[in-house]
Order: sequence, then structure tokens, then C-alpha cells
Amino acid sequence: MYQVRTDLALEAKERFSGDRTEVKGVRVQEEKNGNITVTKVLIETENGAKAMGKPKGSYITLEAPDMAESDEGYHREISRQLACILKELMPIESRELSVLIVGLGNREVTPDALGPRVVDNMMITRHIIRKFGKYAFGLKRNHQISSIVPGVMAQTGMETLEIIKGVLDETAPDYIIAIDALAARSTRRLNRTIQITDTGISPGSGVGNHRHALNRESMGIPVIAIGIPTVVDAVTIVSDTMNNLVSAMEETRKLEDLGKSISRLEEAEKYELIRELLSPSLNAMFVTPKDIDESVKRLSFTISEGINMAFFPA
Amino acid sequence: MYQVRTDLALEAKERFSGDRTEVKGVRVQEEKNGNITVTKVLIETENGAKAMGKPKGSYITLEAPDMAESDEGYHREISRQLACILKELMPIESRELSVLIVGLGNREVTPDALGPRVVDNMMITRHIIRKFGKYAFGLKRNHQISSIVPGVMAQTGMETLEIIKGVLDETAPDYIIAIDALAARSTRRLNRTIQITDTGISPGSGVGNHRHALNRESMGIPVIAIGIPTVVDAVTIVSDTMNNLVSAMEETRKLEDLGKSISRLEEAEKYELIRELLSPSLNAMFVTPKDIDESVKRLSFTISEGINMAFFPA
Amino acid sequence: MYQVRTDLALEAKERFSGDRTEVKGVRVQEEKNGNITVTKVLIETENGAKAMGKPKGSYITLEAPDMAESDEGYHREISRQLACILKELMPIESRELSVLIVGLGNREVTPDALGPRVVDNMMITRHIIRKFGKYAFGLKRNHQISSIVPGVMAQTGMETLEIIKGVLDETAPDYIIAIDALAARSTRRLNRTIQITDTGISPGSGVGNHRHALNRESMGIPVIAIGIPTVVDAVTIVSDTMNNLVSAMEETRKLEDLGKSISRLEEAEKYELIRELLSPSLNAMFVTPKDIDESVKRLSFTISEGINMAFFPA
Amino acid sequence: MYQVRTDLALEAKERFSGDRTEVKGVRVQEEKNGNITVTKVLIETENGAKAMGKPKGSYITLEAPDMAESDEGYHREISRQLACILKELMPIESRELSVLIVGLGNREVTPDALGPRVVDNMMITRHIIRKFGKYAFGLKRNHQISSIVPGVMAQTGMETLEIIKGVLDETAPDYIIAIDALAARSTRRLNRTIQITDTGISPGSGVGNHRHALNRESMGIPVIAIGIPTVVDAVTIVSDTMNNLVSAMEETRKLEDLGKSISRLEEAEKYELIRELLSPSLNAMFVTPKDIDESVKRLSFTISEGINMAFFPA
Repeated sequence: MYQVRTDLALEAKERFSGDRTEVKGVRVQEEKNGNITVTKVLIETENGAKAMGKPKGSYITLEAPDMAESDEGYHREISRQLACILKELMPIESRELSVLIVGLGNREVTPDALGPRVVDNMMITRHIIRKFGKYAFGLKRNHQISSIVPGVMAQTGMETLEIIKGVLDETAPDYIIAIDALAARSTRRLNRTIQITDTGISPGSGVGNHRHALNRESMGIPVIAIGIPTVVDAVTIVSDTMNNLVSAMEETRKLEDLGKSISRLEEAEKYELIRELLSPSLNAMFVTPKDIDESVKRLSFTISEGINMAFFPA
Repeated sequence: MYQVRTDLALEAKERFSGDRTEVKGVRVQEEKNGNITVTKVLIETENGAKAMGKPKGSYITLEAPDMAESDEGYHREISRQLACILKELMPIESRELSVLIVGLGNREVTPDALGPRVVDNMMITRHIIRKFGKYAFGLKRNHQISSIVPGVMAQTGMETLEIIKGVLDETAPDYIIAIDALAARSTRRLNRTIQITDTGISPGSGVGNHRHALNRESMGIPVIAIGIPTVVDAVTIVSDTMNNLVSAMEETRKLEDLGKSISRLEEAEKYELIRELLSPSLNAMFVTPKDIDESVKRLSFTISEGINMAFFPA
Repeated sequence: MYQVRTDLALEAKERFSGDRTEVKGVRVQEEKNGNITVTKVLIETENGAKAMGKPKGSYITLEAPDMAESDEGYHREISRQLACILKELMPIESRELSVLIVGLGNREVTPDALGPRVVDNMMITRHIIRKFGKYAFGLKRNHQISSIVPGVMAQTGMETLEIIKGVLDETAPDYIIAIDALAARSTRRLNRTIQITDTGISPGSGVGNHRHALNRESMGIPVIAIGIPTVVDAVTIVSDTMNNLVSAMEETRKLEDLGKSISRLEEAEKYELIRELLSPSLNAMFVTPKDIDESVKRLSFTISEGINMAFFPA
Repeated sequence: MYQVRTDLALEAKERFSGDRTEVKGVRVQEEKNGNITVTKVLIETENGAKAMGKPKGSYITLEAPDMAESDEGYHREISRQLACILKELMPIESRELSVLIVGLGNREVTPDALGPRVVDNMMITRHIIRKFGKYAFGLKRNHQISSIVPGVMAQTGMETLEIIKGVLDETAPDYIIAIDALAARSTRRLNRTIQITDTGISPGSGVGNHRHALNRESMGIPVIAIGIPTVVDAVTIVSDTMNNLVSAMEETRKLEDLGKSISRLEEAEKYELIRELLSPSLNAMFVTPKDIDESVKRLSFTISEGINMAFFPA
């Protein structure tokens, strides 16, 4: 079956519409905190993973309608919720951790700069605690935070994973927190959703991106991933409009015949048709909002403050 | 009539296909210099301007198939051709000019950073000649080059034109050279074409962008514009694929009926249909290649070197 | 008389030590708010201005011992005090103002990037209010904030003042707020002091910098300047150590004779001696802390938040 | 004995003046190529290393009087000489190498950004050759170039060496080329000298910087270091002027007595005196030219082009 790329479990779930809203092996919980919606998608079985196209684990999303706009500052309330979620996923309050923050992505391409920019604003403590001891900060828990921005292969000539693995071997952290810009399926979600997951980064679930996974299996320690969708694949945009076209046709009297002809096509034929029509260069293209600079700047603060709050409560 | 946005005169011309390749009031000349194609589109009458959706004047494009890739450096030969064209458009070799280089666009959004990055690499001489006299550089012609990066309205709260006009009043240059990232209609042209025109920047010819024009009329001095298409409007991508769909349908036996129904629609109806299907948020979106950082970095050198060569031959 | 360069009125005042702490025409008021010291130096007469080497007007400094270090964030309390001072200097609460924020300095040289980086974080409203009217933000007072980063002469070929004057003529604001990195006399003050003054920027009071003044006289509207010292002139560092040497000698028995010989020199001779010894290249050099990147990043937030709070109270 | 910090072997050599120009175990060769002076300092014995305060090995410097100014571009001739020297130090022409380019320093502090900016302009090939094979570029020798910008400890919380070591273990290159901004003793050398050495980076030879060495011993493979002095330690500037003062005094009639008193002091006493006079904060300060942004931008090209020419001749 054809599936357009999405890095969001929430969107993967939404594909199952109509009669099929229940997916076996997948549980969904939703709650509201003020105007922030927190949704947990728990993929509990291998079958669920297969259906969703995502590895087993917890996917928590924070959504707020005004996240894409600026309030006075960087959405402090969202940072707070993010801190709470991190404390649930890691034993931050019960012991001292050594955590490597990884800022994935390309700093030079605006929508891909989210990870590097989060790292720019992290409170880094590992070198200070190692030099001056655990009383350097006078805190209850002295977490050792380190960070790296590995860059992208076109800049380094190396796999991102090779670099992270090397750093890991030398510094032996307990946890990795990886921040990355994601691809959504729908433009409506861009810059409006934060996804936190304990499954790491598994790009194989999307389309066209064959980096290996950054997860507990490949790294040997737990990997928490935090992401915000900042782009939609160009191919997705066009496919979606096509599908809208077909639905519209079926409902429009004037286009009745037209709709019927298309709906007679098999799903696979429809996808094949779209593929043929699309310019092959579209595969190397992405779609992003014109004001992406402001969103990435603001949202990188929302995330860095959330992480800072989790490890260093005021 | 519906027309998707293109800032390239070459693409505006290409819309006239089939029987209508000749547009009254528009002349086209093409020549090859090595693997660089130089095309001049001369819009000579008001009717031609109307048909093309672009003001009267000369539009010269440099195209090279390998421009989007890196050679060893920044395509020195293209810089040289650009220098020649500038010398045709301005009396650089016959008198000393004072020229203001304007780097339009948003430095923080990668595909829009072309203008600011060209300015970063310009040889700036005005302040030195004014301080040390015309023998400061020991050159035959001592052109006074100044530059400004006015930013975008979201950053400054001011119209770009207000800023440039103000600077103009204070420093009274003879010419403006404005560099800007353009929108193409086709992804195939992205980062492969340089357009030089004596008509300035006239965004009214495109869609959805109502900045006023930066040209001789508004500024009182000649404005040469240099641009490279780095984005395609998201709406354009989808529209184009739709049109491909219709053509394909008309040719495919299986889809015969379908094609017929659509082709029975008026042009306007077809456009209306597409409009309805498109997510309104697409209007604020653009499409750009994933490696846009490398292209913008390299092409900004190609242009800055071209301008530097024109004014300061080695 | 020789005087090393300082942009801080507080330091200019400190030169008058011993019996001469009272300078005619200059009043000094100091108060403590928590651990922030607020000092007002009021230069009230032309004689006072001459003695101080600074134009008549109010110079308010905020000092906090921990300002050079990071707290959790960007020193919110200092931002609040800055907001209060701005409200005293401008009729922010009694009418709607149009204010141009000017970020002086060179973004590419870390200690000089303070002004441009403050502007990066300003809330810009002019274009929105002009487009959507004064109810766009639902605030009590709808101040129109615009901003410009004029760059430095080596980048633009133009005097900074020419650019600002041009922008002023086109957009007619009521006030200018100019932010600039300052030169202190003492390394102890670096990144620890904010100076706010209603006299604008008057570099003539320093040494070796002959930009013209940015003030009410040159601009026709009031100019509030906000600055933080981020560098010391290299010449100053050496001169100061020399002076310490002489003092030390006079007090050390072993060096008694030495001290005597130097103290027999006239002040002018001493300065001449130092001048001769200094490498002339030192005039184009500055001294700055190795961690200047962190300080400038953090302090630019302290200032931008202060200005934002003044105009847009939560 | 007191010794001010210099990273340049050439300056370490210059300390031996007067009768002591010959240092045992150190050979110096100088030649002129056009207006470029190439000096080789060969430290051949442990005694020589001790006297010089630098490890055994070859130190080659390229000096050109106009290197600190811009010519039209980036001093292509210097790049060419650099390429020749690299080919002497590494078997570039006789076999295919895998080389890791390391850009040391802090990208956010202008004079320290040399290393990261060189890496920005490197031709990176490792990932392409590994994916498409050795015929991907159609070159005679297909060197695999990779690169990393490890950042500084305040940003990462990790030792730079930990990061590089980790990357090394994963990717197993044959050689490291490390680029770093250096500290000179004299302001005259800033931005005018390139030092290439096969001894790696050994900060222990300087003062106040206890990073461990990046060299063959610590890394297990040869480390070529390329550096340009962009700063002078603030302490050095003051010490030097002091020394000038003493010399001047001994020669000046008026200050005869003064000079005599100082020259009666032991070397150690003199140094002690200076130390006492210096503000302790000076230790964390550096001195750099006001136009350091232009120099670093241009010189990073000179180096990156030199390396590119060495590995990928046109």
C-alpha cells in the first residue's frame, strides 16, 4: 500500500479512518491541559508497529493552536509540559544522569536547523561538574549535560550515526536526547506539534530517507527523540491535493462521470498515476512556510527551555 | 486568465506554446557561448508587456546545465559572462559611476538569502574613495560601490522601498543593482538560471506579492536587477501536476472518459476547481531543494564575482 | 590632558578621585534595588560637560555583579529595571509612539554584535498596525516599533548616519532607541554594566573614532542610547598598567629611586613616553574576554526583553 | 624563565637574539618565492625542543606582507604554496588517502572561527566515494575527505579530544589535518603568517591553556596542523610594552637613572613586578584587530583552497 511520509505517529494513526479507527495493538489516550492537547499513542505489539509503520513504544504529542504564533516569548507553558513528559520518560528526579543532547539536522537550511538551534540554548554542565565536583552548582541533582551537533553527511562526509557512536564510546552517557526537525503529512500541523518518543529516530518509517536508526538498539542506551514538523515533502502535497480532487469529484454533480472513472481505479493504479505525473525532481524538494525563520527560532527556545527545566528546576 | 507565478521572462514566454510562439511586441534572441546559453527577451511594446505580464525592457538569462552543481569553485566562466552583460547595460567603461548594490530578501531563510549573501562578498569602495580620493586604488576607473541589505518587513516594520529610498536621498548614486531570489514556475530551472534585467524588480507581475516596484520610475535612477530562481510557489507545483493529469488523461485510453469530462471544463472552471482543492495555507508556502544551502552559497559567489569583475577588472 | 577612552559616564566620573570627587555641574545619585545598583550621572552645565568629556544630559547605569554570568535565563529583573528607566525617559504610558530601534555595530565581530542581536529579538509592530489598524494587537497603547541594522562603513561604503537619516526621512518616527556595544576603561566593567542615556551616541568623547554623533541635534528627534561595554581599547590596557607601575614604584622601597624618577615626569611627558612605546598597530586593536560570545548572546536578550516590556507590558 | 605565549615556532626562535641566534638542535631555512617568505624551523633534538618550548618536528611558515589585506580574492598564490607544502608532508600524490579535516575553535567568537570556517569550504568526498565508488569523480587519486567541527568545551561539555578520538575510532582515517586560530606574541604577525607543522596542536607549549595535545601520540595517526595567528594574549601585549619601556629607559638620557634601577632588577623580579600589576582578569582576555571579521573570512578561503588544491588538482 502506498503511504506518504509522516514522522508523526499521530498522523500515521489518522490514516485509519472510517470503520478502522481502532488499530489492534495501538492505544491512544488524549487529555487537555488548558489549551494544550496531549495525545499518547502507545504502539504495544509488533502488529501494531507494522500497521502504523513505526516501531513499538510511546509517542507523546503536544499540540497547541497558537504554537505557530509568537506569544510574548516562547510559550513557557508548553516548555513546562515538555519538562513533565521528560521526567516521566527518564529517572531525572531519582538519580543523577549523564545525558548527551544531539542536535540533528543542517544548521544552514532554515527548517532543518531546529536541532542545532536547540543545542545552542542548552545549559551544558558536564565539563564543570567533572572539573569542580558535584557541588559546583549547589543543586539537588547534578545532571551532567553534554551536547553535539553532528552536522549532515554533505558537510562531514560521515554518517551522523558514526559520529554519535564515536562520541558515545568516549563519554559513556546514560541517555541520549535527540532533537530533529520532522516531516509532516499535512501543512496544518507544521510548527504546531511537538512529538516526544522513547523509540528514538527511525527514519525508515518515512519514505526516501535511508539513514539508519538512532535508537536503543543501535546505541546501547535509551534514546528519547523530540521533534517538531517543519516541512512537508513536496510529493505529499501534490498527492494530497489529488486525493482531494477525487473526493471532490465524487461529490460534485457536474463532475460525476469524472469522479466515477477515477474511483474505478484501484488504489495502486491511482498512486501509480500520480507518481508518473510528478516531476522526479520533486523527490529532492520540500515545502515549508515563508516565515519558517521565526517559527524555528521561537520553537527552538520552547524545546531548550523545556529540557533545561526538566534537569535544572528553578 | 489564470497564470501561475514566475519571475522569469523566459518562462512567461514559454507559456505561449503551439501556434502562439510568436508574441507581438516581444523579440527573443538566443546564443550559445560554450555550454552557457544566453537568451534575450526584449519586450518592446505595451501590448507585449501585457501579454507577458512583465514591464517593457530587456531580460537576459544565463543558463548552464551544470550551474546547480559545484565545479571547482563558483563557475568563473558564468561570472565573466555576467560581467559582460552588466557592461552592456551600464556605462561602466566610459565613466566613473556611483552604484548602490541592494541585497533583497531574508538572510534567515536559506533560499531567500541570495541577495544578502551577494552583498557580503562585494568589493565596497565608496567610503575609501571619498576619504582618500580617486587614486586610492590606482585603477583606471574609480567606481564608488556602496551596498545595503534592507531586510524584510517582518524584521524592520518598514517597506523595503522606504529604506532604499531614504538611503538614495542621502547618498545619490547613479545606478542601483538589486539582487533577489526569484520564484520559478518549474523546479527544473531552480538554481540553473541567472536573469538580468533593466526593468528592476516588479513583483506585481507575479502572484500574491504586493510590494511596490523597485525601478527607474519609483527610484528616479536606473535599476538593474539580477536574480536566480531558488523557489517555486507551492501552489504552482500542485497546479502543474493537475494540468499534467489532464493531459495524461486525454491520452490514456483507460482514462478516456475522465479526460473528456475534464477537458469539457472551461479553463476558468479548471482553475477554480484547483483553487478549491488547495489548502489555503499553501499560499504561504514555498518549495525548494533539500540542498539549497550549497546552491545559495555557491551562486552568491558567482554573482558577486561577476559584479566585482565588471567594476574592477584585474 | 590625556584621557583614555571610555564610553561610560560612570567611569569618566571616577577619574576625579581624591579631593576632586565633586565636579561642578555634575550630580550623581545612587540607589540599590536588590542587588542591582542604579547610578544617575546628571551633567547639568557646559562646564560639567567639558570636565567629563561628555555632552549634557542624563546617564543612568544599571550594574549587577552577576550580570556577566548566566542565571537561569537572561536576568529578568535587570530587564524590568531597564523597562522602568525607559518609561521615565519617554512618554510611553501617556501616548502612542512611533519608535525606530537602531542596532549599531558589526554583526560579524562578536563583541560588536550587541546592537544587531538586540534588534533580532525585538517585537516589531509598525507594519502590522499600519496594515490592520490600531486594534491589531488589542493593547491599550499601540506603539509602532520599527528597526534597522545599518551595518558598518566597511560593509556598506556609507556613513551609518547617512543610512539612519534616510530611513528617518521616509518613516518619521517620534523617537530613536540606539543600541551599541561600548568601550570601557576597565576590564572589570565588561559585560556588567548597562548605560542608558538621553544624549544619544557621541563617539567624539572617546578616542580615535570620528563618526559623527547620533543625537537630537543631528536627527531632529530625541535619541535614547542603550549600551553595554564589551571591549577595552588595547591602548587603554597598557596605559593603565603603566600607571599602576608608577604607583607601585612610589610605594615599593626597592624601587624607590625608580618611582621618583618617573614621578618627576610631567603628566604629558608620561603620556608621551607611553605613546612612543606602544606599537602603532595597537590603535586598531581591542581587548575582550574569551567567552564574549556567551555574554553578548545573553545580554542582548536582557536588553531586548527590557525594551519589549516597556512597550508591551504583559 | 618566564615566557610569553606564542604558538609560532618562528617567534619562539626569535626570542634567541643577540649572541644566541644559534640554538642547538634547531635548524632554520628560509627561502623567498616571489613576495612570499617560506621559513622552515626544524627542531631536531629533545634539547632543541626544550629550548624552544615546542615538540620536535617541522614548522613551516608562509609569510606575505600583504596577506592581511585583500587582493582581488583570497591570495591564490599563497594557497598554491600551501598545497605544495601539504604534498611534501603527506603522500598525496603516491596513494589514495582518507583524511579527516578538523576545524578547531569557537565559531561564535570571530578570531577563533578560522578552523570552523575553513571546514565550511572544504570539498567533502568520503560519503560519495563510499557510495558510488572510486570513479565517482573521475580523478586520478580519489582521496576520501571527511570533516568535523567539534566545537569548544563550553558548548559541548566534552573535551575536544574526546570527540575527535570517537570519530577516529569509527571512521579510521589515515591522516588528520587540524586547522586552528593561533596566538602570536606580536601584533605585527596577526593575520600575516600561516604555520604548517607535522607536530599537531600542542597547546602545552603556550601558557594558560591545558587542553591535551592533538598529535600522533594521542591519536595514533599523523596530525598535520595549519594555523594563523589571529589574537595576542592581553598579558603579552602589556609585558611587551613593559620590556620596551625598560629598553627605552636605558637609552634615554632623561630617564637614565630610571633605566638603571630597572635594569638592576633580575629577570624574575621584573616578571614578578609585571604580574602583580596586571589585572588578574587579563588572563581571560585577548587582543585582536577591529577588522578581524574580514581577515578571518578571507584567510579561511586561502587555507581551504590550499587544501582543496592539494587533494584535487584542477
